[in-house]
This record gives sequence, C-alpha cells and structure tokens, in this order.
Amino acid sequence: MDVHICLSGPCSGGGLVAYSEVRSSPGVYADAVQGDIKKKKVVVLGTGWAGTSFLKNLKGHQYDVQVVSPRNYFAFTPLLPSVTCGTVEARSIVEPVRNIVRKKGLDVQFREAECFKIDADNKKVYCRSSQDTNLGGKEEFAVDYDYLVVAMGARANTFNTPGVVENAHFLKEIEDAQRIRRTVIDCFERASLPSVSEEERKRILHFVVVGGGPTGVEFAAELHDFVHEDIAKLYPSLKDHVKITLLEAGDHILNMFDKRITAFAEEKFQRDGIQLKVGSMVVKVTDKEISTKERSTGATLSIPYGMVVWSTGIGTRPVIMDFMKQVGQTNRRVLATDEWMRVEGCNSIYALGDCATINQRKVMEDIAAIFNKADKNQSGTLNVEDFREVIKDICERYPQVELYLKRKQLKNFVELLKGSQGDVENQLVELDIEKFKMALSEVDSQMKSLPATAQVAAQQGEYLANCFNRMEECEMNPEGPLRFRGSGRHRFRPFRYKHFGQFAPLGGEQTAAQLPGDWVSIGKSTQWLWYSVYASKLVTWRTRVLVVSDWGRRWIFGRDSSRI
Amino acid sequence: MDVHICLSGPCSGGGLVAYSEVRSSPGVYADAVQGDIKKKKVVVLGTGWAGTSFLKNLKGHQYDVQVVSPRNYFAFTPLLPSVTCGTVEARSIVEPVRNIVRKKGLDVQFREAECFKIDADNKKVYCRSSQDTNLGGKEEFAVDYDYLVVAMGARANTFNTPGVVENAHFLKEIEDAQRIRRTVIDCFERASLPSVSEEERKRILHFVVVGGGPTGVEFAAELHDFVHEDIAKLYPSLKDHVKITLLEAGDHILNMFDKRITAFAEEKFQRDGIQLKVGSMVVKVTDKEISTKERSTGATLSIPYGMVVWSTGIGTRPVIMDFMKQVGQTNRRVLATDEWMRVEGCNSIYALGDCATINQRKVMEDIAAIFNKADKNQSGTLNVEDFREVIKDICERYPQVELYLKRKQLKNFVELLKGSQGDVENQLVELDIEKFKMALSEVDSQMKSLPATAQVAAQQGEYLANCFNRMEECEMNPEGPLRFRGSGRHRFRPFRYKHFGQFAPLGGEQTAAQLPGDWVSIGKSTQWLWYSVYASKLVTWRTRVLVVSDWGRRWIFGRDSSRI
Repeated sequence: MDVHICLSGPCSGGGLVAYSEVRSSPGVYADAVQGDIKKKKVVVLGTGWAGTSFLKNLKGHQYDVQVVSPRNYFAFTPLLPSVTCGTVEARSIVEPVRNIVRKKGLDVQFREAECFKIDADNKKVYCRSSQDTNLGGKEEFAVDYDYLVVAMGARANTFNTPGVVENAHFLKEIEDAQRIRRTVIDCFERASLPSVSEEERKRILHFVVVGGGPTGVEFAAELHDFVHEDIAKLYPSLKDHVKITLLEAGDHILNMFDKRITAFAEEKFQRDGIQLKVGSMVVKVTDKEISTKERSTGATLSIPYGMVVWSTGIGTRPVIMDFMKQVGQTNRRVLATDEWMRVEGCNSIYALGDCATINQRKVMEDIAAIFNKADKNQSGTLNVEDFREVIKDICERYPQVELYLKRKQLKNFVELLKGSQGDVENQLVELDIEKFKMALSEVDSQMKSLPATAQVAAQQGEYLANCFNRMEECEMNPEGPLRFRGSGRHRFRPFRYKHFGQFAPLGGEQTAAQLPGDWVSIGKSTQWLWYSVYASKLVTWRTRVLVVSDWGRRWIFGRDSSRI
Repeated sequence: MDVHICLSGPCSGGGLVAYSEVRSSPGVYADAVQGDIKKKKVVVLGTGWAGTSFLKNLKGHQYDVQVVSPRNYFAFTPLLPSVTCGTVEARSIVEPVRNIVRKKGLDVQFREAECFKIDADNKKVYCRSSQDTNLGGKEEFAVDYDYLVVAMGARANTFNTPGVVENAHFLKEIEDAQRIRRTVIDCFERASLPSVSEEERKRILHFVVVGGGPTGVEFAAELHDFVHEDIAKLYPSLKDHVKITLLEAGDHILNMFDKRITAFAEEKFQRDGIQLKVGSMVVKVTDKEISTKERSTGATLSIPYGMVVWSTGIGTRPVIMDFMKQVGQTNRRVLATDEWMRVEGCNSIYALGDCATINQRKVMEDIAAIFNKADKNQSGTLNVEDFREVIKDICERYPQVELYLKRKQLKNFVELLKGSQGDVENQLVELDIEKFKMALSEVDSQMKSLPATAQVAAQQGEYLANCFNRMEECEMNPEGPLRFRGSGRHRFRPFRYKHFGQFAPLGGEQTAAQLPGDWVSIGKSTQWLWYSVYASKLVTWRTRVLVVSDWGRRWIFGRDSSRI
C-alpha cells in the first residue's frame, strides 16, 4: 500500500509458528487444490486497514488464502467525515477486495460473510453470510485454517449510555456516513416545512457531535462548511437557525494532539460559531433530547437536538470478546498479542489492527534471563565486554530501552549502566544482578500501547504479510533477536511502529498536522499537504482519480444536496 | 430544459382560467408576501420531468410558487438502467430542485412531502412529510392554491399479480436502481459462498426481467454487459452460471418500435445468450420462484430465480385515483385533461406527465358547431370562400385533421372536401351539413393518445409554463383558435407534441433509434448519438460533467462492484 512506502527497511518478524498439515474434515469446505496439498490455509477475517494491507503485501502462491468479511470492499476510512457532507462520494473511497487481490494474482477466495465464532481448538471459524436480500435466510458455513489472521476491527463504544444505539449515528462504516448525509438533508427539508414551529425548527437544526477526537472534530468542521458554503444558498431562510455543538467529556478537544493544535482548533471553532462544551458527559439520549452531566457544576442538562453523531472511541466486537474468553484473556479490552502479532495463549492465530494490542514484554520480567544470557562465563557480574554482544538484541527485543535512552539523552546502553553507579568515567564497569536491575528499573516506564489508527493497522498488516512471505526462509535463518528465556534466536524481528504524523482537518481549508519530532503545522498549506498525502495514500489509481475529481467537483459545483 | 430547445415556435395555450383572490384561511400556511397580495399561488405537485420542466420554464415573479414532492431532486430517469449496474452513478443523474429554481431567481418554496389528498372544492392540497428519520413522526400540513399543477407521475403496474410487490424490484426511482445494484452484487457474493449447492448457485444467478419495453430491454442489456465486462474478471468461477431471462407477455419485445429494431434486438439477445420468452405471462412471484403461463401451450411454468426486475408499464397512484373519483372521472386509467392541460371537470387544476392524458376533442362531436361557425350567412351550405376563414382554426383546434390530410396525401382541406363529392376540378364546391359530415367522417380515426414518456412530459411542462408566463397578455389578446361551440377565441393555442425519436440501448455499444419520419438507425454510431443526445439533455452542467466523467471512468476502470 502506498501509504507505507516509507516503512522502515526490510521485513522483520518472530517466533514459533506451529505447522500443521492441511486437514479436510467432512462438512467443512476445503478449497485446497488437489496435488497442492502442502499449501497452508490462511484465513483472513476482515478487510479494513489491517486485513487489506496484509493482502496487498502478501506475495506468491505459497498459501491458499480465504478472506471472510461482511464488506466486499476496502474503505479509505480517513475520508469518512468528508462523505457525510458530500465533499467526497462514498463510492470514491471504496475498492472491491476482489479487485485488490486480482491484481496481485494471488490464490485468494473472498467470502462476503461475518465470522461469528472462532474455534481455536479445532482450527475453524464459523461464518454467517451478510447478504440481506430475499435470497433465502442467512447462510452459515465453517472454514478451516492453518493460520488465522484476525483483523476485524472494532465497533463504536457507547459506554453503555442509554439510547445511544437507538438514536445516535456512528461514524465507523461507509453506511454510517451515507446515513448521516441523508439525515442532514432530512433535517433541512424537515425544517423547511410550513407547519413546523419556530422552536421545533431550532431543535431540528441543532446538530450535536459527541466526542472531541479527530473524527468528531472533523465531522463538526465538515458540517459547518457544508452549511455555510452550500446549504446557506439553497435554504437561505434556515441558515441562522443552524447550531452545531461539540460535546467532550475531557478538558480539551483533540487531546492526543499537541497543545498548540488543541488551542488553535478551540479558537477556530469559537470563531466559526461551533459551540464547544468540554467537561460534559452524555448520560442519556432520547429521540429528541440529549442529557449531559456537567463536570464543573454537577448539573444535568437536557438539550433538544435534530441529529447526534457519536464518536467517542472504540469498543470490542462480541465475537472477539467471546474468543478472548476462550483463550483465557478475560478482563481485557482488546486481544493481547506478542510483538510478532501472535495472540497470546493460542497457536497459529494472529491479530492486528483495532481488535488487538501488542502486549510488550517488560525488561524487568526478563531481567534475570537477560543477565544470565549476558554473563557468559557465569561470573555473577557483567562487564562492558559482556554487554557488547547482547546490546543489539536487547534493544531489538525491548524497544522501550532505546526510547528511554533517547529521553534521558544518553548516548548508549553502557552510559545507562554507568549512570546507575555514579560518574565512573571510561572505566570498566562491573555490575551484579542487583545493580543491573536498578540500572534498568525505569526503562519499562517508556512502554506505551499503540493508538488505534489506520496507520498502525496498515503497518501491522504489511509487517505480518512480510513475515508470511518469508516464513520458510526465516525458519532456516532466523533474523530476530536472541531468545533471552530460551535458546537460539527469534525467527523474525519484532514489529516496530513508525509514526508519520496525524492530521486534524478543522474546516475552512484549515488543517492541523502533528508530524514526527514534535513538528506542528497549521493552516492552508497543511490542508494542501493533507490533500496530497491522502491522495497518495488512496489504495488504487481508480480511487485516487475519483477522490481528486470529487474535490474538483465540489470546488466547481459545490456539494450535492439531493436526498438519495 | 435543453432537451426542448427545438420545440416548435412560440408559446401557445388555451382557455378559461378562473381567477380567484389569494385567500388566507387560518391554520393554512400562506406564504404570500404582504403587499404582494395580488400574486397568485401556484402549487406544483411533483418534481419529475413534467414538474421540473414547468419550473425551469416559468419566468418572472408574477406567481408565488410552492413545490411539493417527496423527492427534493429531479432525476434524469432515462439513465436509470445505467445506474443499476454502475455504468453511471445515481448521484450523477440527480439535481436538487432548489438548485434548479435558485438559478432562475423565482419566488419558489420547496416542500419535501407527499401530497395525499387534493381538495378541489376548497382549493387545498394535503401533504405529509417524507423524512423517515427520528425527527418525530410524519408531519402533515395543508397548502392553499389558486392554480394547481398535478405532475405526480405514475407508479409501477403490477396488474395485481400476487407476490410482485413483495419479491420483485421495480425500476422507476433512483432508490430502485440503487437497490437493484446492491442486489446484483448480493447475488454474486451469495453465490460465492462455499456452502451454497450447485443448484442453489444457479438459482441465485438467474436474473429475470419481466416486460420487454425499452426499460426492461435496456436493463437486461446493461446486466449482460456488466456480467461479461466486469463480473467475469472478479468472480471468474461464476461467469458460466449466470443466466438472464426476459419475459414478455406479447409476441415481441420493443413492440412500440419499428419491426426492424425489434428483429435486431431479438437477434442480438439470442447471440448474447439472453433468454427471450415471448407470450409468457407472469401469474405469480414467490421468494424463490416466478410462475408464468405460456400463451402457446397454456402450460404454467415455475422458474427459480435470484432476482426479478418488474418493468411492465405504469399504474395510477392512489391519490390520483381518489382525485379522479372526486371530479367524476371514474373508470379511467389516468386523469383526463383538455388540450390546454386543464383537468376535465374542475377549475384551476392542470395535470401533465404520466398521471394525465389529453382527451382530444373529436371533430364529429363538434361538427354542427363547426358548420354553423363557417356558414356565416346561415345559407345552410358552405362554399370554399366560407371555409377559407375557418380552416386555420379547424386545423389548430383538431390536430387530427392535418394528420389525416398527410396520411391521405391531400394538399389541403379543400381537397378533402372535394374528394368527398367526386373529382370536380377547381369548381366552387357547395356542401350541406350531411356532405360536410361525410367528408370529415374518418378524420377522427387519426387521433391517438401520447405515450407516457419523459419527452411528452417535458414538452407539456414547457408548454404549461409558457401559458402561465403569458396568462395576462393572452387574456387580453387571445391567440388560440376560434371557439366553435362558444364565442370568441381560445386564450392559448392547444398543446402539440413534437416527437424527436426514441432510443433503445441494446448493450455492447449497440443502440437502436427510431427517429421521426420512420428513420431507423442501429449500431455503434447510434450509441454515440445516444451518448451525445443524453449528455445534451441532462438538466444542468453539473450533471452533464458528472455523467460524462462516469462514462469515461467506466471505460478506464470498469464498473465498481463494492456493495454499498
């Protein structure tokens, strides 16, 4: 995928993968071609960023791949807010999965169905068709796998707030964006009816966005632009009735961004007349009112609204929840994997994207093993020479070490060890296990889990595909770091995320971007950067041409307000 | 509308229109601006071809116009079959009504609602909002009118065949086309599931089109192209399972076209593998089977299918049916109007497009009045001199006369009269009433009602708008023909339809066209004619650019098969 062109160097990856023969039990549909009996069956669940990136980067014909997803297309989700108001058409940001895999010439079968159960013991997934026409009930079937790649993403998180599912719109899927677009037009048409009272008209034209993350902020900005650039001309009498409110439970919107961006966004929204209410937690949504609890006063307010868009983060899908119980990962929010994307507690199952998180190994957990491995002569103390051989492996296996060094502005690992025993300049250092522990005691504080973004998912998909591509090769010549707790080396290098920055479009051709190295960029030029990055990231030339022509069309003709 | 650029000459129109003062009864929403009290209130029901054409051609600010339609856009319906398979996007062929009227600078209010009752006695229409979101129930309201323009179109005709409404797809609205598109993809995705049996797969991929009119034929052709140009690549294993069947109750498809076109189409379909079953009447549709009665054998067949598209002509909307009862037009299929579009049996109500038909006046009904009018000196006989003064009026009032002359290859009316009494060369002819009757006795055989096409509706809309534009002017200087039964002249010239031809796209870049003067054109060049005519007919530059770029996109990238 073009978006990852600059992903660091060659593939890296890890670990033991249990090989098993292709089995074909009766009643289960095995698509392995006769004679090709050695081909391992890979089943991919999901065609979002992670799943599609995996498919796009998988090479050759060594696997028999089946893809199961309720959507037969990949959607370029960062443009979803643009779809809600017709800046970009829904169809311009989707690409059929079959198109993507056909071009690769892979041996891939696609099934438009939803996986409702993963049976890790029998290496099967159970699926239900997602066609909702009168074709005769929901078809169910099971698929065998040798390797399972779980990339099912997440669902919207309602925090169990009553009435949200029934009355609010989410903004996760293409259908959501299309529904929001129709509803916005519905609100304006409804407000144009002669029998509607002035008060009711105000209610109908009150748009509430819950959640001040990038999606909520971008939607509010898009809606504001739509109202002022297009709706104002077509519904001139309604323009002044429109009100957009953004509710955020925390203290600031865009709180994962730099403070300069947050401040700029808050100021711009105020200038634009978008009402910003921070410290406001939604406690209930009815069909016409949304109730909030204000943190500052403790009071409960009820606000009449016409449309609510709910964008407060992600929750776990039921099938993942069920699978987590199965593999003993209870009390967790998402599936835990190791640094090689393998789901903890089971064999041959990989998870990536929003449905998983990498459970990084703590240095302190392995500290004794590391010490032993380094202390080759079993002297009970370590000197710099001893370290030299394992430093590279330690840094590769425990990425937090490098982050810690960087943060403390230390040149290398030896300096860290030195630092722990005072300023002994250039002397040969000797450490026993206790001193070693002390030196590394704060290293684990640098661990943080990756954000649930398209960027992470896509890099994980590419990483895993590269591992699959080189499975046999790396089996023979492992390229990963030393196994501190075992013997030999890990098969692959562990996954490393490389952050390329994040955009926050704020409407009116103003975009903020937080780029690597604390570089913040805000303004019209950033909007152009946004245009060009998104155009280049789009998955195929087809979608690229369509999106760019959508932008041009909006510029010439404005957005369409037909209710279709 | 560009499509009517070549409509014959200046406006013409007719009749008495009861003027009434703008009333404003309580509880009814009157939008007439204070001080502008003289403005007549015109209510337009519908935004299809007729209604939109009326709005586009209405000039000036002499009316206070309200438009009521369940769709806030105009759809270029001839391209609907192209939308079903993604050759053209739905959004490319629609234009918001507000956009259309805004550009005209008219005083127009649009209401997105459906009229459910016309109250001719009180000059009110009752409407119900059509927004189906959770905005709080269906809003109802009434609108006052001075003039009512009924242009609500028709609905699909099921001939009360059981199961059609539940199981078949129609192809009249944008939503229908979008639903068909999704269902086609659904069928292919369903057929790709591993658990589906071979027999079931065949059923799912059997597409049945009922009705061999232009729409049904074009849809079958589009579907065939879609399957062979795009689907074959993405679902290679399914290509050979696809079957398309076209059912026609008559003897031939496209029976309103020239026989050469019918023969070409039937032959092409056979070559393409589209199964054509003529003389086959559908008697029942269940969720998986369609039952037909074969006229030749009398046998009843049941055919398993995956999708049925029903396109057998038009039926009356319930609200029109109800209105017809109100004005005493029972036992009719559609509303009858006179040649000036006025609904028979009521004042100030006009009907046009598919919901109405012009009830042409027969010459024989008026024969005595015509004779009297011509016989100025009340001599009891007519001579050529007497005629000269009324011939133009007769031909204008009774268009069948000219058609009859043309068919009989007579130079003029005098020849017709002469012919009736033998070959009396150049002599002064004298006719009494009996001979006059005999001469004109066959003239009425040339009357035929206009087809329910976009072309007719659009010309009617333009005609009526021109009448409205010149209402006061023609009140003072009537420009219509003599009133044979009354005194004075008709206010406007009666409506005359001018036929510009009709296309029948047959797939594979082959199109047939029947042009005026029995000119038939078939082939690739006709397809290009079709492209250029349709592009020029499109309602705005926006839709024109979009449709042309859709065509280009299809040509470069193929059709999209994402199920959205």
